[in-house]
Amino acid sequence: MTTAAEVLLRCSELDRFSAHSTFLERSYLTPEHAAANKQAAIWMEQAGLTTWVDAAGNQWGRREGPTPDAPALILGSHLDTVPDAGSFDGMLGVVMAIAVAERLKGTELPFALEVVGFSDEEGTRFGKALLGSQSVAGQWDPDWWELRDRNGVTLHQAFLDFGLDPRHVGDAARDPESVVAYLEAHIEQGPELEAADRSLGYVTTIAGARRFKLSVIGEARHAGGTPYPRRRDALVGASEAIIAIERLAKASDCIATVGRIEVRPGAVNVIPGRADFSLDLRAATDDERDGMLDVIVETIDELCEKRWLRFESQENHSAASAPCAPWLQQAVIDGIRRTGDQEPMGIWSRAGHDAMAIAEIADIGMLFLRCFDGISHHPGESVREVDVERGLDAFEEAVRRVAVTWPGRSQ
Amino acid sequence: MTTAAEVLLRCSELDRFSAHSTFLERSYLTPEHAAANKQAAIWMEQAGLTTWVDAAGNQWGRREGPTPDAPALILGSHLDTVPDAGSFDGMLGVVMAIAVAERLKGTELPFALEVVGFSDEEGTRFGKALLGSQSVAGQWDPDWWELRDRNGVTLHQAFLDFGLDPRHVGDAARDPESVVAYLEAHIEQGPELEAADRSLGYVTTIAGARRFKLSVIGEARHAGGTPYPRRRDALVGASEAIIAIERLAKASDCIATVGRIEVRPGAVNVIPGRADFSLDLRAATDDERDGMLDVIVETIDELCEKRWLRFESQENHSAASAPCAPWLQQAVIDGIRRTGDQEPMGIWSRAGHDAMAIAEIADIGMLFLRCFDGISHHPGESVREVDVERGLDAFEEAVRRVAVTWPGRSQ
Repeated sequence: MTTAAEVLLRCSELDRFSAHSTFLERSYLTPEHAAANKQAAIWMEQAGLTTWVDAAGNQWGRREGPTPDAPALILGSHLDTVPDAGSFDGMLGVVMAIAVAERLKGTELPFALEVVGFSDEEGTRFGKALLGSQSVAGQWDPDWWELRDRNGVTLHQAFLDFGLDPRHVGDAARDPESVVAYLEAHIEQGPELEAADRSLGYVTTIAGARRFKLSVIGEARHAGGTPYPRRRDALVGASEAIIAIERLAKASDCIATVGRIEVRPGAVNVIPGRADFSLDLRAATDDERDGMLDVIVETIDELCEKRWLRFESQENHSAASAPCAPWLQQAVIDGIRRTGDQEPMGIWSRAGHDAMAIAEIADIGMLFLRCFDGISHHPGESVREVDVERGLDAFEEAVRRVAVTWPGRSQ
Repeated sequence: MTTAAEVLLRCSELDRFSAHSTFLERSYLTPEHAAANKQAAIWMEQAGLTTWVDAAGNQWGRREGPTPDAPALILGSHLDTVPDAGSFDGMLGVVMAIAVAERLKGTELPFALEVVGFSDEEGTRFGKALLGSQSVAGQWDPDWWELRDRNGVTLHQAFLDFGLDPRHVGDAARDPESVVAYLEAHIEQGPELEAADRSLGYVTTIAGARRFKLSVIGEARHAGGTPYPRRRDALVGASEAIIAIERLAKASDCIATVGRIEVRPGAVNVIPGRADFSLDLRAATDDERDGMLDVIVETIDELCEKRWLRFESQENHSAASAPCAPWLQQAVIDGIRRTGDQEPMGIWSRAGHDAMAIAEIADIGMLFLRCFDGISHHPGESVREVDVERGLDAFEEAVRRVAVTWPGRSQ
């Protein structure tokens, strides 16, 4: 039986499938993606699963249920990474799902059991996240074919290069009737469990981020010759906006981050005429998040007006929050209780996950594992062996609870 | 004789030598630099001057004085531009100098007369200003050879590509004995003359700018998973610094500008771990300027400490202020009086000029022309024909006055 130590070892074994020799980057439809799929398939087969790669490059394994074509409980996460990634974001969930399938090898279940390693969650290569799980949810958008990677290769061409037929991508979509539910284990990517001295937590909802390009427009002028009363400095305006964004979000339960800024013309001796910056906005509920947005926009509008600056905002990403189904939250809670934690901690996920996409076609549930200092998207990602051990026990128990509480079990 | 209208036309003719088809950018040692030199040389020859390009790419023209090798009065400015530039900053001074040389064609002068179009004043390509005029002043620093443009091309390689021999750059240096004085006409790049309803002004001193790369260093972390108490957001810190810089400078007689900012890693969903931004600092006197720097650094240090951020500052340019020689100020005043303005207005130049570099080897004087709304380093740069007309008269008269008041004239 795969132990927690072996799970951690497998995560680091996957590290060698990387685009770079000195740091980890595994993105969609690359040779290292194919290699990671192949390695995951070997482990899946050792766990008694029949394996295949679907029409969008996702790696699957399945054991049949009581009847052929019985609907499946799907366990999984993703195998792709950000650039300069850690070893656990995504991969831990896939490897744990395989280990749980192995543990349940002899156990009769009222459904088929499937494990999936999604092919693209991070959106590293084509700038669009959740491509793998959205294909499974039947949400593939034909406009995506024209997305290009940094070398100008289209998603369409990347499919062909990988040996996939773009015309058949629809085959990756799963009929909701064929799915019992989706369960995902993932590192928390936050410090809450560590601060509460707990190994595990159950997810209540996954926040949907909205992302914007904000622009402050003033006038580019000579740095020396333009006295203060005549300046319309876009960067000073943007700086006030960035501070206001932090102040407003801090005073609420929202999280707002400006991760990018660019000023033009961008010369040492020219007053910036334009500043473009990003806004990433998250909250436990979409209402809170959208309310915060209104306040932020109104505040920036006012402060720009005072400086004779123009303010523009353009949305370029919006995801609805995805609540975890109460019966699956309960299954995960029961699983955690099994490990000795009688009052499991609920957490809303600030980060996005494949489960958000799968929520379109099935109920979802998530188990979070403590990670060191909340660090993620960074080589410093780290999980403790004891937490993985408890995580495996909890995840296995959650599957057993689903077998009992699944509303469709009597069908 | 070249009229004011023709001077303006020539400025716009130079606009076509640009790296871009939709906006003006002409930087050091580029094909468009070579083309602008060639065009200026044609006009210089039409004005009766013998032309050459010196060892640092500056374009020269000369008519001899009463004896061979007689020292020269140099008139000029620069032919390079910032990105997305206007048509007059630099170019107007070169074109006016050529026009004045033409007006004086038949006039006997006690010195040789030279016109120069400096090759690099703005520092657009290699981030280091005044390369052209510093080569003439004999201030070339061998460390500069390793400066790189945004494509990674070294200054050394750019010399070779342009057809210049880096080993001979010292040949561009002028013996101070060979120079009578340096006179430069330039748009004001500020709103003082316009506010005072005057065409022309004389420069009293050129402020010396100091420039820095400031860095705020925090920690890059996942935007979703990192709650506010654990954030060390370098961009929020930099924003506070930028606002403090404006507040402090506004309360003094200094001018401080942040024209550039870059954050890393620069991803929408990652808290910035590092922000690098520029500071350009100017004042009428070097003491005022340096006092302001101390206050700015102390203030940023304090506000970074409060946010657990690290602050670093690195100076990459420092120029002493360059006073105009009283006898040349007087020549310019006499020139302006000739146009009907009996009480010419003196201005300290907030902007740097080639004259600052030439001050190392010769007395300098400057004539300012009114420009629309003080706009400069922007396509909206604009001068009135009537001001150019008066400027040509004043500049010609200033040369005639120098011929009379030059302390070396009796030699």
